[in-house]
Amino acid sequence: MTRTNVQSVSFARTASEIAAVGRRAYARGWALGTSGNFSAVVSRRPLRLAITASSIAKGALSASHILLCDDHGRVVGRRSGKPSAETLLHVEIAKRRAAGAVLHTHSVWSTMLSDGQNGRDGRDGRDAVVIEGYEMLKGLTGITSHEHRELVPILDNDQDMVRLASRVGEALDQHPDAHAFLLRRHGLYTWGDTLGDAERHVEILEFLFEAVGRTRGRDGAARERGGPSWP
Amino acid sequence: MTRTNVQSVSFARTASEIAAVGRRAYARGWALGTSGNFSAVVSRRPLRLAITASSIAKGALSASHILLCDDHGRVVGRRSGKPSAETLLHVEIAKRRAAGAVLHTHSVWSTMLSDGQNGRDGRDGRDAVVIEGYEMLKGLTGITSHEHRELVPILDNDQDMVRLASRVGEALDQHPDAHAFLLRRHGLYTWGDTLGDAERHVEILEFLFEAVGRTRGRDGAARERGGPSWP
Amino acid sequence: MTRTNVQSVSFARTASEIAAVGRRAYARGWALGTSGNFSAVVSRRPLRLAITASSIAKGALSASHILLCDDHGRVVGRRSGKPSAETLLHVEIAKRRAAGAVLHTHSVWSTMLSDGQNGRDGRDGRDAVVIEGYEMLKGLTGITSHEHRELVPILDNDQDMVRLASRVGEALDQHPDAHAFLLRRHGLYTWGDTLGDAERHVEILEFLFEAVGRTRGRDGAARERGGPSWP
Amino acid sequence: MTRTNVQSVSFARTASEIAAVGRRAYARGWALGTSGNFSAVVSRRPLRLAITASSIAKGALSASHILLCDDHGRVVGRRSGKPSAETLLHVEIAKRRAAGAVLHTHSVWSTMLSDGQNGRDGRDGRDAVVIEGYEMLKGLTGITSHEHRELVPILDNDQDMVRLASRVGEALDQHPDAHAFLLRRHGLYTWGDTLGDAERHVEILEFLFEAVGRTRGRDGAARERGGPSWP
Repeated sequence: MTRTNVQSVSFARTASEIAAVGRRAYARGWALGTSGNFSAVVSRRPLRLAITASSIAKGALSASHILLCDDHGRVVGRRSGKPSAETLLHVEIAKRRAAGAVLHTHSVWSTMLSDGQNGRDGRDGRDAVVIEGYEMLKGLTGITSHEHRELVPILDNDQDMVRLASRVGEALDQHPDAHAFLLRRHGLYTWGDTLGDAERHVEILEFLFEAVGRTRGRDGAARERGGPSWP
Repeated sequence: MTRTNVQSVSFARTASEIAAVGRRAYARGWALGTSGNFSAVVSRRPLRLAITASSIAKGALSASHILLCDDHGRVVGRRSGKPSAETLLHVEIAKRRAAGAVLHTHSVWSTMLSDGQNGRDGRDGRDAVVIEGYEMLKGLTGITSHEHRELVPILDNDQDMVRLASRVGEALDQHPDAHAFLLRRHGLYTWGDTLGDAERHVEILEFLFEAVGRTRGRDGAARERGGPSWP
Repeated sequence: MTRTNVQSVSFARTASEIAAVGRRAYARGWALGTSGNFSAVVSRRPLRLAITASSIAKGALSASHILLCDDHGRVVGRRSGKPSAETLLHVEIAKRRAAGAVLHTHSVWSTMLSDGQNGRDGRDGRDAVVIEGYEMLKGLTGITSHEHRELVPILDNDQDMVRLASRVGEALDQHPDAHAFLLRRHGLYTWGDTLGDAERHVEILEFLFEAVGRTRGRDGAARERGGPSWP
Repeated sequence: MTRTNVQSVSFARTASEIAAVGRRAYARGWALGTSGNFSAVVSRRPLRLAITASSIAKGALSASHILLCDDHGRVVGRRSGKPSAETLLHVEIAKRRAAGAVLHTHSVWSTMLSDGQNGRDGRDGRDAVVIEGYEMLKGLTGITSHEHRELVPILDNDQDMVRLASRVGEALDQHPDAHAFLLRRHGLYTWGDTLGDAERHVEILEFLFEAVGRTRGRDGAARERGGPSWP
């Protein structure tokens, strides 16, 4: 096959996989309405992302709603359409983290935690959620112990995607170990080498957000950080 | 085809779509038992609504449970039966908002928020739920930024449907930008140009009610209005 | 067909329907493990109940797990086995309420509310849950307005089924309008003319228990009774 | 058939059953990502366990992800691969409790309760969750009344599996009546004579953890222990 054909085959398969990931996220209440957007890298040089089109109801997401974009968020290839408004954020993550897939979900718990007003003083609070001491953290790539401190940065939400992409880039550089970030009152961005890795990160982080969110609701803000049961 | 035939075909297809929307609402716990009712406009002049019959358990809703009504809530066409007791509310919304579909659901969170006793003073409280600053608001038709203030009016519940329809009409006129209203300790009414738009509004609003309801539970009444993270 | 054959046919169909009701209850988390039991009246004179056998995991409930019992809770007919330990309670309800079906479920919210320690003084508290002012109440047979006060008696749990059946009988007589009762830290009993009616009652009551339970958690004990929004 | 063939048949069937149990746990949110591991005894002398391989996403668990291990947690038989890191814990339980199946799940509620900081003084608190007075306790093997006090020990989490297995062994000896234990901020271990018994124990305990966890959240720490409604 020619190079173009290879890419087409790869794009078609990736588009189906992205659609399946999106429908599962919808079924769990993490991408209700038209919320959420999902992408995977089809080629690295030049950078080509398969990504959900804008304003698609995620419950009925199919491969036909997936577009191919370049690193400026412009559609390439035969399909026309408008890619997700947040395509530039996906590009930023794909480039700075060398991620193979980027998933953005909107859950109730991530929305609540991203408010950032119930954390403790210091870094856990307005600008980050700190999660520490949970076995579930081992589901994040490269983490091998519950004795890990995951800092999930919170960025202010913004409708100006160029400006927001720039701030995302800065945050990724400032927090080189972070597996994810939150947009305030908006949702979660996480990524991975493959769609499977990124989907696992969504599951792990949503679990932890719920556990941390319910614990905060019960005990007050300082609860889930530090505790008597680990150093 | 004659005009009558065209309408019959349209009615049959619409009835199937309404039934599918209703079964999905039931599956999510938003239309348990016989609660909830759903309609779509089949013709505008004269106004004809396809609407769920009264007292149907929504888990087994099928197209055969959908009736055709006129703008006085009277059954027209070949099928007999009793339309939903709340048909006049659907008519009121279809007329004043030029809506193509109207959905009424009963969720736990909308029931709790419609109590209207935990909001802050002023308009967010007894008579309205105010939702502000959430990205998810962009799922409401015409909203393009999270920096939006959605006021969801709360109307007292009433078994007198003529009186309630009249109050609904007044509330729609008073709040021309509202995408929905709540009946106290009863549930949600929302609408859209199409069944798909109205169903998206249900998903968006239920998500927001849960996020706002959980946040109120955690933080106290004034929490979800105003916040440090947007102007 | 002879009388016996008619009853056999009726039993077989009823057993299938009971099993389907039970699997749905399990799927919603209302009959986890071996909890819950379900019955329907197959004949009135003499009283014959089709009822779930004892100790069956409800996730795999099939018609073969349904036995035919008389009004002393003894198995009749060809199938052998041990009927549910709580058969006498079903018999008591079937007789005193002339119910056609009796359903017993164990949900988290009914378990919590049946503690009876968070209600207000007077009758809403230790010995009853009082639910008032909710539109959803109209899903209970015979209720036509949200301006209804449903008193759900709470009975202390007991492993002595003869004694408990006797107390159930007394409670049914004392509360002739009740559609259900709770066993403390145990679960819900409700009934109806048909399995469909009884299943609708479970859905309605579980919805209301969750709404009342979450409201109590948020606002304190006196909250859900009386309110400013109805007389 | 030869002895080896019999074991092969038994292993194949057991592997399918384990995979089905795992997929159900995943569907309920009790084994998100790669969390959770599941085993069943294939032969007692010598001890052979069928157990989930390490790092498998549980949503796609199939029989091919199940390995056969000996009592040192080493793979035996034709399949190669790395057994779950926690295999030694399964071995310890299978030996000390003569269990036929061991299930380890990670739910939000078990994670929260395993923090052990909200229980009352004494044994219910940091080192155990005490559950008492619930009918649902009768779903635990050998329990015949709600008037039972189940003590679920909480062990500190540890990445050193030899050390943790040793502490698990001690805890099992110290609490000969316990049906389960919790690892702090990690999850639940429970077991049974068969996979069905062990799965029922998961359902029963998860139900009770949610009921106890929600009650603690509402009422404060001392609430679910002792109460006015049983001796």
